[in-house]
Amino acid sequence: MQTELSKQLGIEHAVFGFTPFPVVAAAISRAGGFGVLGAVRYTAPDDLARDLDWVREHVGGRPFGLDVVMPAAKAEGPDGRALSEADVEAVIPEGHRRFVEETLAGYGVPPLADGEASGWRVTGWLEQVARGQLDVAFDHPVKLLANALGPPPADVVARAHENGVLVAALAGSARHARKHADAGIDIVVAQGYEAGGHTGEIASMVLTPEVAEAVAPLPVLAAGGIGSGEQAAAAFALGAQGVWLGSVWLTTTEADLHSPALTRKLLAAESGDTVRSRALTGKPARQLRTEWTDAWDDPAGPGALPMPLQGLLVAEAVSRIQKYEVEPLLGTPVGQIVGRMNSERSVRVVFDDLTRGFERAVDRMNRVAGRDR
Amino acid sequence: MQTELSKQLGIEHAVFGFTPFPVVAAAISRAGGFGVLGAVRYTAPDDLARDLDWVREHVGGRPFGLDVVMPAAKAEGPDGRALSEADVEAVIPEGHRRFVEETLAGYGVPPLADGEASGWRVTGWLEQVARGQLDVAFDHPVKLLANALGPPPADVVARAHENGVLVAALAGSARHARKHADAGIDIVVAQGYEAGGHTGEIASMVLTPEVAEAVAPLPVLAAGGIGSGEQAAAAFALGAQGVWLGSVWLTTTEADLHSPALTRKLLAAESGDTVRSRALTGKPARQLRTEWTDAWDDPAGPGALPMPLQGLLVAEAVSRIQKYEVEPLLGTPVGQIVGRMNSERSVRVVFDDLTRGFERAVDRMNRVAGRDR
Repeated sequence: MQTELSKQLGIEHAVFGFTPFPVVAAAISRAGGFGVLGAVRYTAPDDLARDLDWVREHVGGRPFGLDVVMPAAKAEGPDGRALSEADVEAVIPEGHRRFVEETLAGYGVPPLADGEASGWRVTGWLEQVARGQLDVAFDHPVKLLANALGPPPADVVARAHENGVLVAALAGSARHARKHADAGIDIVVAQGYEAGGHTGEIASMVLTPEVAEAVAPLPVLAAGGIGSGEQAAAAFALGAQGVWLGSVWLTTTEADLHSPALTRKLLAAESGDTVRSRALTGKPARQLRTEWTDAWDDPAGPGALPMPLQGLLVAEAVSRIQKYEVEPLLGTPVGQIVGRMNSERSVRVVFDDLTRGFERAVDRMNRVAGRDR
Repeated sequence: MQTELSKQLGIEHAVFGFTPFPVVAAAISRAGGFGVLGAVRYTAPDDLARDLDWVREHVGGRPFGLDVVMPAAKAEGPDGRALSEADVEAVIPEGHRRFVEETLAGYGVPPLADGEASGWRVTGWLEQVARGQLDVAFDHPVKLLANALGPPPADVVARAHENGVLVAALAGSARHARKHADAGIDIVVAQGYEAGGHTGEIASMVLTPEVAEAVAPLPVLAAGGIGSGEQAAAAFALGAQGVWLGSVWLTTTEADLHSPALTRKLLAAESGDTVRSRALTGKPARQLRTEWTDAWDDPAGPGALPMPLQGLLVAEAVSRIQKYEVEPLLGTPVGQIVGRMNSERSVRVVFDDLTRGFERAVDRMNRVAGRDR
């Protein structure tokens, strides 16, 4: 799977793998793809530095990237000062905090131990936290900086380019993609409706060619609905210069979800078992449908708060649900391809399956075109 | 675009075109595809017979099909008697009728003239009406009978097969597709989330391969998100034996929407301008988003009734909106590819564009695979 972009990056396959796990990111790059480590769960820059060091030492000289979640506009208080986590926490309504506790109590979810830190933090959504991550990233041989919330601020784009780092931004519509292109980014990730995580309502089949045409000659990566080589082939047919896979790595043997129950749920889920919900971050994000997402999506409940409030509101609750593996509430961002994630495979086997499926699809297309070999 | 199915049917391109317009259906078959006439707007069997005669006379001996909307289960009253249109009308709540009139009044929509029949009827949803259509269909050289609501009743499948007619059924999930296959149908149309009309929540990128695997060796047609040759290529890569296009014909020069304003709206719409709403029939159907769909989707309103009540409730209102071209309310079922329907083309030109786009996509795939010609 070779495109101009994969040649430019010096990778064997134009397959970009987004993952929160350094071990998985390194395995993706070693397998010939391009591993992209998700930064959002790192609150301490030192932890990120340690893990980026680890990835660098384990990719055998191959390139890798970092994915941040950075709003283009600052969250500022009335005095123009950037908002801290405490500022933001202070505006969360008491009724919403009560709803969290009552919902957890309904399932008998115990509290964390005294002094135990919440392992699931979303403060990476805050710009100042993301900026700390960037300082670390630019100290490491990161070749691609991806941002999940559109283009990063202009100074970040400039700094990336000074450091020889390509900048990618996710977009859910051709209109947004054009704005991103105008902001000087290098690659657009067209995130279809079927994708895990933050996503819009336009499906990949429609979105990929629209975005590719809107931002040409910038390269577009197709994201959403891609877990097999046939799906990768479809994305290339639609004009993508690469594919961006996130969900499929969650059930690899290298991934460590710290929850056998969650892995079982992912392996058992069908493609209809996800929902686009604001429960996790305040913006619509596709995830496993659970009684937790149902509670937030229920018109009779208080409803999710806007980003970044919802993420701060539920951070500890999500940690508790994960720690105690409370099955009815236990979920994770994942796309509709979860229906085909039915066995644990190594990253290497995922790549072998991708390349074989891709070759089969090309064979089939050539037969349909009457160009049999 | 040749597959086993297209060879079996003796058509040049495995492109199936669904349309309510006989002129368009005939043009699709003449262009080398397979025209499928939508039957739902025909209340009088004689009108359908006349139009099928016309199609037969204008396809130059090429095959064509009919699409009905037939529930697998009968709508029956408590005495086991099939429900008539009047029976069904009688259970529509007065508050809903009032909401229709008040909404129309808010836009100053005039009534139809005295004695003027509503041109937009949905009584085709009723099984007894669909059965009358079938009697007509089996008197004509229809080669394919498609049903939008899953498999037709068993006796209809048997009758089709006795007449040498293939039966296709739409499915929005692999589970439904397996049920349809068990009911003895011949072809599954995998209707993705992005499609116009009745549709589920699984996008084509995920749905097509799932359904193809679930019902193999039955052939699968991919529907939803397909308006270009690149999108058709993607569908073939995903394992489809054909593509099923509906929306793209609405803005062909042969189509007669009887509404220049509606054609303008379609040509101007972007891919984000559709909504999956129950406003039209009571089941979620993708259509242009309008102030009419907003009114039905508004939690503060009475909400849509279940099928077939909603269709009967709004039939006359929709006729009035269309007749008087009340722009804010004027809509039609259409898929997300409406964003690329930006000029009026003849059916022949649509086919030329499809085949050229398909060839381009195959070239691109072969380059990605390192199999350049």
